[in-house]
Amino acid sequence: MNADKARRGNFFEDFSLGQVIDHATPRTMTSGDVALYIGLYGPRFAVQSSDAFAQSIGYPRAPIDDLMVFHTVFGKTVPDISLNAIANLGYAECRFLLPVYPGDTLSATSEVIGLRENSKRASGVVYVRTIGRNQHGLQVLSYVRWVMVRKRDARSPMPATSLPKLADGLDPAELAAELPRLDVARYDFVLAGEPHRWADYVPGEKIDHLDAMTLEEAEHQIATRLYQNTAKVHFNQHHQPASKRLVYGGVVMSLARALSFNGLANAFHIAAINGGRHVGPCHAGDTVYAWSEILERAEIPGRRDIGALRVRLTAAKNRACADYPLRTPAGDYVEGVLLELDLWLVMPR
Amino acid sequence: MNADKARRGNFFEDFSLGQVIDHATPRTMTSGDVALYIGLYGPRFAVQSSDAFAQSIGYPRAPIDDLMVFHTVFGKTVPDISLNAIANLGYAECRFLLPVYPGDTLSATSEVIGLRENSKRASGVVYVRTIGRNQHGLQVLSYVRWVMVRKRDARSPMPATSLPKLADGLDPAELAAELPRLDVARYDFVLAGEPHRWADYVPGEKIDHLDAMTLEEAEHQIATRLYQNTAKVHFNQHHQPASKRLVYGGVVMSLARALSFNGLANAFHIAAINGGRHVGPCHAGDTVYAWSEILERAEIPGRRDIGALRVRLTAAKNRACADYPLRTPAGDYVEGVLLELDLWLVMPR
Amino acid sequence: MNADKARRGNFFEDFSLGQVIDHATPRTMTSGDVALYIGLYGPRFAVQSSDAFAQSIGYPRAPIDDLMVFHTVFGKTVPDISLNAIANLGYAECRFLLPVYPGDTLSATSEVIGLRENSKRASGVVYVRTIGRNQHGLQVLSYVRWVMVRKRDARSPMPATSLPKLADGLDPAELAAELPRLDVARYDFVLAGEPHRWADYVPGEKIDHLDAMTLEEAEHQIATRLYQNTAKVHFNQHHQPASKRLVYGGVVMSLARALSFNGLANAFHIAAINGGRHVGPCHAGDTVYAWSEILERAEIPGRRDIGALRVRLTAAKNRACADYPLRTPAGDYVEGVLLELDLWLVMPR
Repeated sequence: MNADKARRGNFFEDFSLGQVIDHATPRTMTSGDVALYIGLYGPRFAVQSSDAFAQSIGYPRAPIDDLMVFHTVFGKTVPDISLNAIANLGYAECRFLLPVYPGDTLSATSEVIGLRENSKRASGVVYVRTIGRNQHGLQVLSYVRWVMVRKRDARSPMPATSLPKLADGLDPAELAAELPRLDVARYDFVLAGEPHRWADYVPGEKIDHLDAMTLEEAEHQIATRLYQNTAKVHFNQHHQPASKRLVYGGVVMSLARALSFNGLANAFHIAAINGGRHVGPCHAGDTVYAWSEILERAEIPGRRDIGALRVRLTAAKNRACADYPLRTPAGDYVEGVLLELDLWLVMPR
Repeated sequence: MNADKARRGNFFEDFSLGQVIDHATPRTMTSGDVALYIGLYGPRFAVQSSDAFAQSIGYPRAPIDDLMVFHTVFGKTVPDISLNAIANLGYAECRFLLPVYPGDTLSATSEVIGLRENSKRASGVVYVRTIGRNQHGLQVLSYVRWVMVRKRDARSPMPATSLPKLADGLDPAELAAELPRLDVARYDFVLAGEPHRWADYVPGEKIDHLDAMTLEEAEHQIATRLYQNTAKVHFNQHHQPASKRLVYGGVVMSLARALSFNGLANAFHIAAINGGRHVGPCHAGDTVYAWSEILERAEIPGRRDIGALRVRLTAAKNRACADYPLRTPAGDYVEGVLLELDLWLVMPR
Repeated sequence: MNADKARRGNFFEDFSLGQVIDHATPRTMTSGDVALYIGLYGPRFAVQSSDAFAQSIGYPRAPIDDLMVFHTVFGKTVPDISLNAIANLGYAECRFLLPVYPGDTLSATSEVIGLRENSKRASGVVYVRTIGRNQHGLQVLSYVRWVMVRKRDARSPMPATSLPKLADGLDPAELAAELPRLDVARYDFVLAGEPHRWADYVPGEKIDHLDAMTLEEAEHQIATRLYQNTAKVHFNQHHQPASKRLVYGGVVMSLARALSFNGLANAFHIAAINGGRHVGPCHAGDTVYAWSEILERAEIPGRRDIGALRVRLTAAKNRACADYPLRTPAGDYVEGVLLELDLWLVMPR
């Protein structure tokens, strides 16, 4: 009489094209989350740090860090999508659609938009589009991710491959529709930490963010639990006896973003993640550095107050980024590179 | 002129039957505590995680996790009751009497209800009934615990043994009087994470909660300080040079409860702890697993919306719980068992 | 095209007498910060822990711990003042001018009030007076600190030495002007944890605070990031390969203050830091102890409700403080001493 009520997560066979999954555990975000987020990563963007600053440019109060919203929504999807994942392969078409404030409750729904069995038939790739909503049912976040998931049984028959068509990058016209109209004359560049505006950045420009953080087990575990992310690899040492627990990739994203303040202090909002890739594993004891390259500078139609910068934010471990590490001449990733994020950032003009 | 203002805690001689102790440091609970609690244990019960979910079934907002209330009240008693404790022996008759919400201020009072000197006369067992109250003076929690406390002087004369009569378990009629009347039709089992209702569980059923957490020193220290628990064994490495710092037993309770979500997701409220026992010590580096056995299914008189499940929640370290470890055929605890908690859980019918 | 937008901090040459620096990143303090502060240090002062207690004596709600205000304001100054510091030499004339409550936003401004090149010309000492303000522009904190800062180039010419005249201690008449008038009859000494009032302490009295805390890397890093303090030595293991990361001195201050509850439970407010000195480095794994000596007992003019105690709070590592360690007969600091803080504490009369 030992019922199987505890869930072991979905396997590749459990997914079907068009399947919609409402994920469990809605989560009310609070100023407690904000404090813990600051304690875990040390971000210094004035808009997220200060109600007074946020209000001065038109927000009702300081919004919650965009990546904290991302991680919270992502965390809800884990028990259904990636509990049996072998690897989190990538992100695309991620848009931050509405600011989230303390007191808002987030929930998440995913739709399976692509499936591809791997050639060895032991696993397959699942593509999902996940929508995060607030307590009013309004979309605050939308993104696609794809993960490699184990099959329960290699002999299971699988449907034909179906791959979603994903944009290489979001159109600036789609960005930041939700942002308050800023009164840039009231944006205090001294309090914000740097004088550089949107027009001061040029495509091709590279910025070594100089600072670095050495990660501890307790830090990444507290962060990942805060997002109610349940993936075993982050928490259970027995799960990978030969190494340390794997740091949730979102922790590296948030660290890199916090480090990027030094050089991109006025990039106060992530409007979109065009693409993202966790290149290598990160473990406790690793020291994370970051650098950015400006890929594109775009006007946002109808907005004279803000502009968009397309930026590739790269994180590396255990090496400084003065030489802007990314790929070797042969096209491989340089050793130590952890993360490549292709972002649309918003900045005052 | 070195006055002895710093307190060294009470010894067994300092307790007398009927003695009432008002404990220091009232504590206002906040959404900051809630966030940190999620970060430290990763609970996913929807009622405690989401104001919107809690409100949908009749709470004014998300209540604070029952065990966080327990640990906070417990923490206040430590400087007076157990600073010189050799061992925390057990709990009984623990009832959660009123929900606690962010903004409420908790304080604690204990009455000595039993005393028994040990045969070797170097220590004795103190039984206290502790009441936790909110800022309106209303009881939110009541429990009995007994601890073995050192004597200041083995030669001190002691009063006759007096043992309290403790119930083996609370009567379901005493449970959950304070709970809002749930509109079960509005309880969203999808958002809550599992479809299983009260009637889906049967006595004798065993549930391996599958997940596990490897504990770090920083995690249990932050948790234990959050409860303002001052017991030296948790914080001062010099206090036990031969081993690591001892993890506060409440940390194991909260971890086991959070892990029990997987299989008991709708057991949204702990109405009572009939009994509890810390079977073995837990240290940083240990990985905590948990399993539950359904002991009894009881109606709560006058309630058609909810029912009570009596559940034994067992935590073990450094071993999975697929074989439901508890006692050997000879009656000893299986190696690795950390905690045995006999709970009344409340679930929608 | 690799622009130098990331900031490397100021060097000694970059400072000039009378220079005023508005520091970046205003910070809204919240109940999340309060919870994390309790989790990191375990303070038990009833006024800061309980809205109900604080209100009972005249505060609108529990104020934020004085040292948390100090660390937050201090943290803002780091990128401008001490990113290239060799050592943080001392504090003086630190006054806590107004209570800070959750919801208040802090910002900081510093004025260079002294400069002295070191004899070897590779560095110099910078004296700044820093003012912390709330969102209404009101001063909440004022202090002087001096730091040894590297020169960019030893050959740079420097202006003449100019040293500020600093008071040895603040006049009690300057203290606590902002405090609510307490209704001492309503101050509950049982809930506060100890019976001792202002008049119960006598100059020369020494108090061993007995308790101790073993520090972890994750703990001091989370604390220091919470203050948005960016000094590399606290976070980047590569920065001091021969040792562990250096613990931010403010962490030791807060630990010592929290430990001092045991013996000074009613010293509910730090009115001033007359002087402070980080005597030795602290690293993860160190166990911090503390003791206090009462230096002076002073009336506060016009106040019958409260009085001031001048207290030297000393922290030491890896040794108990039963023998009140401070200096050897030869005048050197005893091995293990970490911190010496000369405080004006406020207590009910």
